[in-house]
Amino acid sequence: MHARTAPATSTPRSITALPAHGVWSPVLVPLRPDLSIDSERFLAHAHWLLAQGCHGLALFGTTSEANSFSVPERKALVERVVEGGIAPERLMVGTGCCALTDSVELTRHALDAGCRRVLMLPPFYYKGMSDEGLFRSFAEVIERVGEPALAVFLYHFPRLSGVPVTEGLIALLDDKFPEVVAGVKDSSGDWSNTRMMLDRFPHLAIFPGSEVFLLDGLRSGGAGCITATSNVNAAGARAIFDAWSDGSDTADSMQEAATAVRRAIDRHPGIPAQKYLIAHYGNDPAWRAVRPPMTALTDDAGRDLLDGLADTAFDGARLAVR
Amino acid sequence: MHARTAPATSTPRSITALPAHGVWSPVLVPLRPDLSIDSERFLAHAHWLLAQGCHGLALFGTTSEANSFSVPERKALVERVVEGGIAPERLMVGTGCCALTDSVELTRHALDAGCRRVLMLPPFYYKGMSDEGLFRSFAEVIERVGEPALAVFLYHFPRLSGVPVTEGLIALLDDKFPEVVAGVKDSSGDWSNTRMMLDRFPHLAIFPGSEVFLLDGLRSGGAGCITATSNVNAAGARAIFDAWSDGSDTADSMQEAATAVRRAIDRHPGIPAQKYLIAHYGNDPAWRAVRPPMTALTDDAGRDLLDGLADTAFDGARLAVR
Repeated sequence: MHARTAPATSTPRSITALPAHGVWSPVLVPLRPDLSIDSERFLAHAHWLLAQGCHGLALFGTTSEANSFSVPERKALVERVVEGGIAPERLMVGTGCCALTDSVELTRHALDAGCRRVLMLPPFYYKGMSDEGLFRSFAEVIERVGEPALAVFLYHFPRLSGVPVTEGLIALLDDKFPEVVAGVKDSSGDWSNTRMMLDRFPHLAIFPGSEVFLLDGLRSGGAGCITATSNVNAAGARAIFDAWSDGSDTADSMQEAATAVRRAIDRHPGIPAQKYLIAHYGNDPAWRAVRPPMTALTDDAGRDLLDGLADTAFDGARLAVR
Repeated sequence: MHARTAPATSTPRSITALPAHGVWSPVLVPLRPDLSIDSERFLAHAHWLLAQGCHGLALFGTTSEANSFSVPERKALVERVVEGGIAPERLMVGTGCCALTDSVELTRHALDAGCRRVLMLPPFYYKGMSDEGLFRSFAEVIERVGEPALAVFLYHFPRLSGVPVTEGLIALLDDKFPEVVAGVKDSSGDWSNTRMMLDRFPHLAIFPGSEVFLLDGLRSGGAGCITATSNVNAAGARAIFDAWSDGSDTADSMQEAATAVRRAIDRHPGIPAQKYLIAHYGNDPAWRAVRPPMTALTDDAGRDLLDGLADTAFDGARLAVR
């Protein structure tokens, strides 16, 4: 029902009917010198991302270093963000952990904070688990939380999790919990997999995990993208979305420009690289910190990153006025 | 200094000088119908394992479904086990999590409970991290805990964690924290890797993660083994250890017998298979439960498992009198 062959002339009704749509930013998490979460710097960044055009913010996906923080740390930041004026309907909270009990606790907590959208990794320590076992894991969370308003976005990132969210698993969950299963973030980086999801589950909000696939996704019924590099180039991704929804013939050139920025960043470890860019252009060295096991970008790598971006449409000045 | 070429005539002094030695069982965790930890069944099993000859118990490694439980659930069981009469010096507590703060909390808690030996996975969500980043992760835990009595056993299980504990990482940690880094559990299943560790770090307690390598390990200066299938065949592994330490010429035949048992179990998913055996021989169906994403062994697979074991020295009767 969302398939189309040419750009529409305004934001199509079909995309706004999806459980979520647009450009979502999985927000980077700045740290204090003791490696605790710097919630005030986070809030400033979150407000800036929305001002730059993000439709919403994914808090505690991979880019937020989610699994590097404890459950209490994650809950505290969600509370602070909502208190700090980010509307809960603009948030999608990562709640999928290895431990069923942690996933239940974080999901309940997100709902209590007013956030009904959650992004759930499968439990990712044990590898080679059956779809049935993974289904039971998600089902236990959904049933224990027992809140029909819950909107679950499944998080497929096999390169890091080692545990794929397969077509069969999505189908099992979609059949059993049609009101709760809302979409998928596909961070496989494999367009043929995203294409499969779009074809097979047109009623779900399918978000490619990179803006590289934003325009192709939108033209195929996709929901938009949830993309790490929106932390430094949200405007570039939003421009693609707007051009597409306006039916502008600039959409393809916008896509090319954003893709070139992405490729330049992808030559470095993504989280340290983007933290480096925010620190550099914002003149705020504290932003460079990452939690182990990650390491901050070295000065040499940082210079190489800046050099690579110099040949693209990347606009560091946007980061300077945060 | 621990290398030897022939079995000694009594437990060699060198092995007793290691930070730990012998047959350690990574204890299975039984569940209640609501999937919470059944601490009373656990305690009974733990006492039985020691009575069967285990030198010690590893609580919350892979076989304990450690990562499927929350930090509060893990802490509660450690406390109950010590209260329930298992001496803390017989315990090695798994405390390595994805989140630095969780690893610190669990390690401090283990020490507070009197358990100075901890088994630490590296943070295992992010893949391809540098040895330097992983070193920093372990170093932060050791420094934040700040307890010289701490004995850290590094946990190398690349097939599940996706994050190897490399020779270079061990060397970094061993150089920086010689009093704290005590050993390695090598669950690679690759004897050449265990052999490298034995050669390179003879002062550390190197435990192969399977009894298949127990005798080879002991003869090469290894510490013993920490092996999942000791949950159902502890006596078989202990018999190898005793034959070796007594200089008995039965050690090799003991090894062959235990290896055959292991191979028969390895044809099925290990945790569900062993829970099935305990449930079957102990006439206690509650033992079959596993936490998602794992699934319990089906009846058909259970019969196949029993058939496979029928051709081995496996002694189910031992499990009947628990």
